[in-house]
Amino acid sequence: MKPVDHLITLQPPYYAVVFTSIRREGDNIDYSEMADRMRALASEQPGFLGFESARQDIGISISYWESLDDIRAWKENVSHRQAQERADDWYRSYRVRICRVEREYGSSITS
Amino acid sequence: MKPVDHLITLQPPYYAVVFTSIRREGDNIDYSEMADRMRALASEQPGFLGFESARQDIGISISYWESLDDIRAWKENVSHRQAQERADDWYRSYRVRICRVEREYGSSITS
Repeated sequence: MKPVDHLITLQPPYYAVVFTSIRREGDNIDYSEMADRMRALASEQPGFLGFESARQDIGISISYWESLDDIRAWKENVSHRQAQERADDWYRSYRVRICRVEREYGSSITS
Repeated sequence: MKPVDHLITLQPPYYAVVFTSIRREGDNIDYSEMADRMRALASEQPGFLGFESARQDIGISISYWESLDDIRAWKENVSHRQAQERADDWYRSYRVRICRVEREYGSSITS
Protein backbone atom coordinates (compact mmCIF):
# COMPACT_ATOMS: atom_id res chain seq x y z
CA MET A 1 0.00 0.00 0.00
CA LYS A 2 1.37 3.44 -0.83
CA PRO A 3 1.73 5.97 1.99
CA VAL A 4 -1.34 8.04 2.70
CA ASP A 5 -0.68 11.65 1.75
CA HIS A 6 -4.12 13.11 2.17
CA LEU A 7 -7.26 12.73 4.22
CA ILE A 8 -10.70 12.15 2.79
CA THR A 9 -12.67 15.38 2.45
CA LEU A 10 -16.44 15.28 1.93
CA GLN A 11 -19.49 17.52 1.98
CA PRO A 12 -22.04 16.76 4.76
CA PRO A 13 -24.58 15.44 5.24
CA TYR A 14 -23.46 11.89 4.51
CA TYR A 15 -23.01 8.71 6.54
CA ALA A 16 -20.11 6.91 8.18
CA VAL A 17 -19.78 3.34 9.41
CA VAL A 18 -17.27 3.33 12.25
CA PHE A 19 -15.93 -0.16 12.90
CA THR A 20 -13.81 -0.56 16.04
CA SER A 21 -12.19 -3.90 16.81
CA ILE A 22 -9.74 -5.85 18.92
CA ARG A 23 -8.01 -8.64 17.01
CA ARG A 24 -7.75 -12.18 18.34
CA GLU A 25 -4.31 -13.47 19.31
CA GLY A 26 -2.43 -15.50 16.73
CA ASP A 27 -1.85 -15.44 13.02
CA ASN A 28 -5.35 -15.48 11.50
CA ILE A 29 -3.58 -16.09 8.24
CA ASP A 30 -6.49 -15.23 5.98
CA TYR A 31 -7.39 -12.04 7.84
CA SER A 32 -5.47 -9.47 5.80
CA GLU A 33 -6.46 -11.11 2.53
CA MET A 34 -10.11 -10.82 3.60
CA ALA A 35 -9.66 -7.23 4.83
CA ASP A 36 -8.08 -6.16 1.52
CA ARG A 37 -10.77 -7.93 -0.47
CA MET A 38 -13.61 -6.37 1.53
CA ARG A 39 -12.08 -2.94 1.19
CA ALA A 40 -11.77 -3.34 -2.60
CA LEU A 41 -15.30 -4.70 -2.85
CA ALA A 42 -16.77 -1.92 -0.70
CA SER A 43 -15.20 0.69 -2.96
CA GLU A 44 -17.17 -0.71 -5.91
CA GLN A 45 -20.55 -0.40 -4.18
CA PRO A 46 -23.10 2.30 -5.01
CA GLY A 47 -22.86 5.26 -2.68
CA PHE A 48 -19.35 4.45 -1.45
CA LEU A 49 -17.45 7.67 -0.71
CA GLY A 50 -14.21 6.53 0.91
CA PHE A 51 -12.40 4.47 3.51
CA GLU A 52 -9.87 5.27 6.24
CA SER A 53 -8.34 3.05 8.90
CA ALA A 54 -5.64 2.70 11.52
CA ARG A 55 -4.72 -0.04 14.00
CA GLN A 56 -2.71 0.23 17.20
CA ASP A 57 -4.13 -1.24 20.41
CA ILE A 58 -7.50 -1.24 18.71
CA GLY A 59 -8.45 -0.97 15.06
CA ILE A 60 -10.65 1.82 13.78
CA SER A 61 -11.95 1.57 10.21
CA ILE A 62 -14.36 4.10 8.78
CA SER A 63 -16.24 3.79 5.52
CA TYR A 64 -18.15 6.80 4.20
CA TRP A 65 -21.45 6.48 2.33
CA GLU A 66 -24.04 8.63 0.60
CA SER A 67 -27.07 7.12 2.32
CA LEU A 68 -28.34 4.62 4.86
CA ASP A 69 -29.73 2.55 1.98
CA ASP A 70 -26.23 2.23 0.52
CA ILE A 71 -24.95 1.03 3.91
CA ARG A 72 -27.77 -1.50 4.17
CA ALA A 73 -27.09 -2.82 0.67
CA TRP A 74 -23.38 -3.24 1.46
CA LYS A 75 -24.22 -5.05 4.71
CA GLU A 76 -26.35 -7.50 2.71
CA ASN A 77 -23.74 -8.07 -0.03
CA VAL A 78 -23.18 -11.83 -0.27
CA SER A 79 -19.37 -11.81 -0.07
CA HIS A 80 -19.51 -9.27 2.72
CA ARG A 81 -21.98 -11.46 4.63
CA GLN A 82 -19.63 -14.42 4.32
CA ALA A 83 -16.88 -12.28 5.86
CA GLN A 84 -19.23 -11.06 8.60
CA GLU A 85 -20.06 -14.64 9.52
CA ARG A 86 -16.37 -15.26 10.23
CA ALA A 87 -15.95 -12.16 12.38
CA ASP A 88 -15.47 -14.18 15.56
CA ASP A 89 -12.49 -15.98 13.97
CA TRP A 90 -10.68 -12.67 13.61
CA TYR A 91 -11.94 -10.38 16.33
CA ARG A 92 -12.09 -10.79 20.06
CA SER A 93 -14.48 -7.90 20.09
CA TYR A 94 -15.94 -5.43 17.62
CA ARG A 95 -18.48 -2.61 17.46
CA VAL A 96 -20.24 -1.14 14.46
CA ARG A 97 -21.59 2.42 14.62
CA ILE A 98 -23.83 3.91 11.95
CA CYS A 99 -23.37 7.67 12.02
CA ARG A 100 -24.77 10.66 10.21
CA VAL A 101 -21.99 13.16 9.57
CA GLU A 102 -23.48 16.57 10.22
CA ARG A 103 -20.49 18.87 10.05
CA GLU A 104 -16.96 18.59 8.73
CA TYR A 105 -14.01 20.98 8.71
CA GLY A 106 -10.26 20.84 8.72
CA SER A 107 -6.99 22.27 7.63
CA SER A 108 -4.19 21.26 5.35
CA ILE A 109 -0.71 22.68 4.97
CA THR A 110 0.21 22.97 1.33
CA SER A 111 3.98 22.83 1.18
CA MET B 1 -0.86 3.29 29.04
CA LYS B 2 -2.28 -0.12 29.85
CA PRO B 3 -3.37 -2.39 26.98
CA VAL B 4 -6.91 -1.88 25.78
CA ASP B 5 -8.98 -4.93 26.61
CA HIS B 6 -12.42 -3.72 25.69
CA LEU B 7 -14.18 -1.41 23.30
CA ILE B 8 -16.47 1.40 24.31
CA THR B 9 -20.14 0.39 24.23
CA LEU B 10 -22.87 3.03 24.28
CA GLN B 11 -26.59 3.46 23.74
CA PRO B 12 -27.58 5.61 20.70
CA PRO B 13 -28.46 8.26 19.97
CA TYR B 14 -25.34 10.15 21.01
CA TYR B 15 -22.60 12.10 19.21
CA ALA B 16 -19.08 11.37 18.04
CA VAL B 17 -16.29 13.71 17.03
CA VAL B 18 -14.10 11.88 14.54
CA PHE B 19 -10.67 13.50 14.24
CA THR B 20 -8.45 12.22 11.41
CA SER B 21 -4.94 13.54 11.01
CA ILE B 22 -1.58 13.21 9.33
CA ARG B 23 1.34 14.19 11.56
CA ARG B 24 4.08 16.55 10.46
CA GLU B 25 7.57 15.14 10.00
CA GLY B 26 9.97 15.49 12.91
CA ASP B 27 9.86 15.23 16.65
CA ASN B 28 7.20 17.72 17.71
CA ILE B 29 8.48 17.13 21.20
CA ASP B 30 5.50 18.56 23.02
CA TYR B 31 2.92 16.73 20.91
CA SER B 32 2.32 13.65 23.04
CA GLU B 33 2.31 15.67 26.23
CA MET B 34 -0.41 17.86 24.70
CA ALA B 35 -2.36 14.87 23.38
CA ASP B 36 -2.34 13.19 26.79
CA ARG B 37 -3.34 16.41 28.51
CA MET B 38 -6.21 17.08 26.09
CA ARG B 39 -7.47 13.53 26.45
CA ALA B 40 -7.45 13.81 30.26
CA LEU B 41 -9.14 17.21 30.13
CA ALA B 42 -11.81 16.04 27.69
CA SER B 43 -12.71 13.18 29.99
CA GLU B 44 -13.57 15.70 32.74
CA GLN B 45 -16.01 17.67 30.58
CA PRO B 46 -19.81 17.46 30.96
CA GLY B 47 -21.33 14.98 28.54
CA PHE B 48 -18.08 13.15 27.78
CA LEU B 49 -18.78 9.46 27.15
CA GLY B 50 -15.46 8.01 26.01
CA PHE B 51 -12.42 8.18 23.77
CA GLU B 52 -10.79 5.74 21.34
CA SER B 53 -7.84 6.20 19.01
CA ALA B 54 -5.30 4.51 16.76
CA ARG B 55 -2.48 5.78 14.56
CA GLN B 56 -0.81 4.07 11.64
CA ASP B 57 -0.42 5.94 8.34
CA ILE B 58 -3.08 8.31 9.60
CA GLY B 59 -4.42 8.93 13.08
CA ILE B 60 -8.07 8.44 13.94
CA SER B 61 -9.30 9.67 17.32
CA ILE B 62 -12.93 9.52 18.31
CA SER B 63 -14.50 11.19 21.31
CA TYR B 64 -18.09 10.33 22.23
CA TRP B 65 -20.49 12.90 23.69
CA GLU B 66 -24.05 13.15 24.97
CA SER B 67 -25.01 16.22 22.95
CA LEU B 68 -23.91 18.79 20.39
CA ASP B 69 -23.89 21.39 23.17
CA ASP B 70 -21.33 19.33 25.06
CA ILE B 71 -19.15 19.17 21.94
CA ARG B 72 -19.46 22.93 21.44
CA ALA B 73 -18.51 23.60 25.06
CA TRP B 74 -15.44 21.39 24.77
CA LYS B 75 -14.43 23.11 21.55
CA GLU B 76 -14.55 26.46 23.36
CA ASN B 77 -12.64 25.25 26.43
CA VAL B 78 -9.71 27.65 26.94
CA SER B 79 -6.93 25.04 27.21
CA HIS B 80 -8.40 23.14 24.30
CA ARG B 81 -8.46 26.33 22.22
CA GLN B 82 -4.80 26.93 22.95
CA ALA B 83 -4.06 23.42 21.68
CA GLN B 84 -6.25 23.96 18.59
CA GLU B 85 -4.29 27.12 17.76
CA ARG B 86 -1.12 25.06 17.56
CA ALA B 87 -2.65 22.36 15.33
CA ASP B 88 -0.53 23.37 12.34
CA ASP B 89 2.65 22.77 14.38
CA TRP B 90 1.69 19.13 14.79
CA TYR B 91 -0.45 18.15 11.83
CA ARG B 92 0.20 18.37 8.14
CA SER B 93 -3.49 17.85 7.66
CA TYR B 94 -6.52 17.15 9.83
CA ARG B 95 -10.29 16.81 9.51
CA VAL B 96 -12.95 17.06 12.19
CA ARG B 97 -16.30 15.35 11.68
CA ILE B 98 -19.27 15.91 13.98
CA CYS B 99 -21.47 12.83 13.79
CA ARG B 100 -24.74 11.67 15.24
CA VAL B 101 -24.50 7.97 16.11
CA GLU B 102 -27.82 6.46 15.12
CA ARG B 103 -27.21 2.74 15.55
CA GLU B 104 -24.63 0.62 17.31
CA TYR B 105 -24.11 -3.11 17.59
CA GLY B 106 -21.30 -5.56 18.05
CA SER B 107 -20.02 -8.77 19.47
CA SER B 108 -17.59 -9.82 22.13
CA ILE B 109 -16.08 -13.21 22.85
CA THR B 110 -16.06 -13.86 26.56
CA SER B 111 -13.22 -16.27 27.19
